[in-house]
Amino acid sequence: MKYYGGIDLGGTNSKIGILDETGKIVYSTIVKTESSLGYEESVKKLSDHIKFGLEKNGISYSDFVSLGIGVPGPIVNKSTVLMWANFPWPNNLNLAKEFENELLKPVFLDNDVNVITLGELWVGAAKGYKNVLGMAIGTGIGGGVVVNGEIISGKNGASGEIGHIPIEKKGRLCGCGKRGCFEAYASATGIARIAKDRLQVNKNNELYNLTYGRDPEAKDVFECAKNGDKLSLDIVEETAEYLAIGISSALSILDSDIVVIGGGVALAGDFLIDKIKKYLPEYLMSSIVNNVEIKIAKLGNDAGIYGAAYLAMQSVK
Amino acid sequence: MKYYGGIDLGGTNSKIGILDETGKIVYSTIVKTESSLGYEESVKKLSDHIKFGLEKNGISYSDFVSLGIGVPGPIVNKSTVLMWANFPWPNNLNLAKEFENELLKPVFLDNDVNVITLGELWVGAAKGYKNVLGMAIGTGIGGGVVVNGEIISGKNGASGEIGHIPIEKKGRLCGCGKRGCFEAYASATGIARIAKDRLQVNKNNELYNLTYGRDPEAKDVFECAKNGDKLSLDIVEETAEYLAIGISSALSILDSDIVVIGGGVALAGDFLIDKIKKYLPEYLMSSIVNNVEIKIAKLGNDAGIYGAAYLAMQSVK
Repeated sequence: MKYYGGIDLGGTNSKIGILDETGKIVYSTIVKTESSLGYEESVKKLSDHIKFGLEKNGISYSDFVSLGIGVPGPIVNKSTVLMWANFPWPNNLNLAKEFENELLKPVFLDNDVNVITLGELWVGAAKGYKNVLGMAIGTGIGGGVVVNGEIISGKNGASGEIGHIPIEKKGRLCGCGKRGCFEAYASATGIARIAKDRLQVNKNNELYNLTYGRDPEAKDVFECAKNGDKLSLDIVEETAEYLAIGISSALSILDSDIVVIGGGVALAGDFLIDKIKKYLPEYLMSSIVNNVEIKIAKLGNDAGIYGAAYLAMQSVK
Repeated sequence: MKYYGGIDLGGTNSKIGILDETGKIVYSTIVKTESSLGYEESVKKLSDHIKFGLEKNGISYSDFVSLGIGVPGPIVNKSTVLMWANFPWPNNLNLAKEFENELLKPVFLDNDVNVITLGELWVGAAKGYKNVLGMAIGTGIGGGVVVNGEIISGKNGASGEIGHIPIEKKGRLCGCGKRGCFEAYASATGIARIAKDRLQVNKNNELYNLTYGRDPEAKDVFECAKNGDKLSLDIVEETAEYLAIGISSALSILDSDIVVIGGGVALAGDFLIDKIKKYLPEYLMSSIVNNVEIKIAKLGNDAGIYGAAYLAMQSVK
């Protein structure tokens, strides 16, 4: 049996996994990334955990084939991180090479949402498909594009940046500095912004009572909407319509086999998916919408290590 | 030397080419498609022209490897046309098989704009690139998506349907029946619609004089804009902004190496490209826009046979 390592590199914590070639996790752990100590320290520490996991499970080092890493940033050539959002590490760092020097095995990187999408394709909600649009709807909206079973990374490591599709001309200000981006409307942050705004002028509703004395969050809005709170339901409907617009843009270009939605907002489940599907025919051409498949992601927090290990496996083939 | 056939199947005329493996056209002709006589007749006729072209050029039939065809419709499995817009031919027709029965060589199909994009990649404006977004801006806006040197066809043969990206919520009615589609604003038809509308209330301009007694066309608008006509310039500016929005949507998802623009509107050349580039930073994330490359297509009406022959060549490898 061959084994592959998968690391989901995070700003605070990193998840480490060792998987066999069938997609079974044989070892996993979570460690502090401690990026402030410098990338050399983190690379050493994470590599040591991989070595420990192999030893602990009695896996011969020669059966350990390669390592994959999902990174929160733009990646080119499956190796180089063009820039870091929350790490004090140098731009254009060939992080794959750093790990290779430590492990003496081939190492492959890609953007975290791309990698998560690959995980869902291997053993999750998109199993059996080859062309997948993955979406992670949380603080922002990340996207992962898999074509013919492989990640599209893009010229600038920026493929799948679905959150920054312009959906409203001169629209709401986005965290990126532009206006009208998809994620300014349909992310958890966007939903919370709309809710906070509405509650300023409308206090006769369940959401106001539930969140009295604090800021409303997206999950509060979904909870109250499911209970039938009119104000919350309206926000969910608007969000679903914006999600339908963003998904329509992406599918008009990719015509993917399936859309897999993960991230915090996906916890709303079919309650949200059904509403998105209701709005899709207004924005997506009939030949695509009649055959559309949208599913909630299955792998949760483990998606990153599944996808990273699969990236490692397919990249050495 | 190996040879490949390329057919650009059109509603009225079809273009036929025989190309060598270096991308040189050794024979080409244009024939009436005569689709009304049934697909059997057209397949026979087009195949006979391929055979004639080979003979005329003294090419041994054994050196003729395969045939590619660009088709104005959605294609799956490089073989089957899901539906026909302007042909009285049956839906779900395996047209590749029909040609194969006639020619006894492998035959591969894809959508016409996808095929054109492949032609530009082989010997045109995108030569040397692997990831290309092709756009054909004319009556509508077609798109072609090439990733790692190969066409993405999509689950429903509908990838690259960039013309139907929703860019204005509850916007202008599109020919497809939906509202707010990209091509309802930025196609030649969209430009002509805006011009006609403006001329109803504003008659003191060059465009009005030029098109007096007839409907304005997109090329009239560009001509007058280049001469400095204020009304026409405003329309071009608006069009360029909408084009920037559509291109931003596509590049946010694909992060392609290069965008190649063809079709009638592309005749406006750098006058239009420069204006599109002016608006891009407002809608496209900086990591992509700082490195963006947009070029006018080079191959003109021959792009279809170049791309079809290349599809034939790469599909047998």
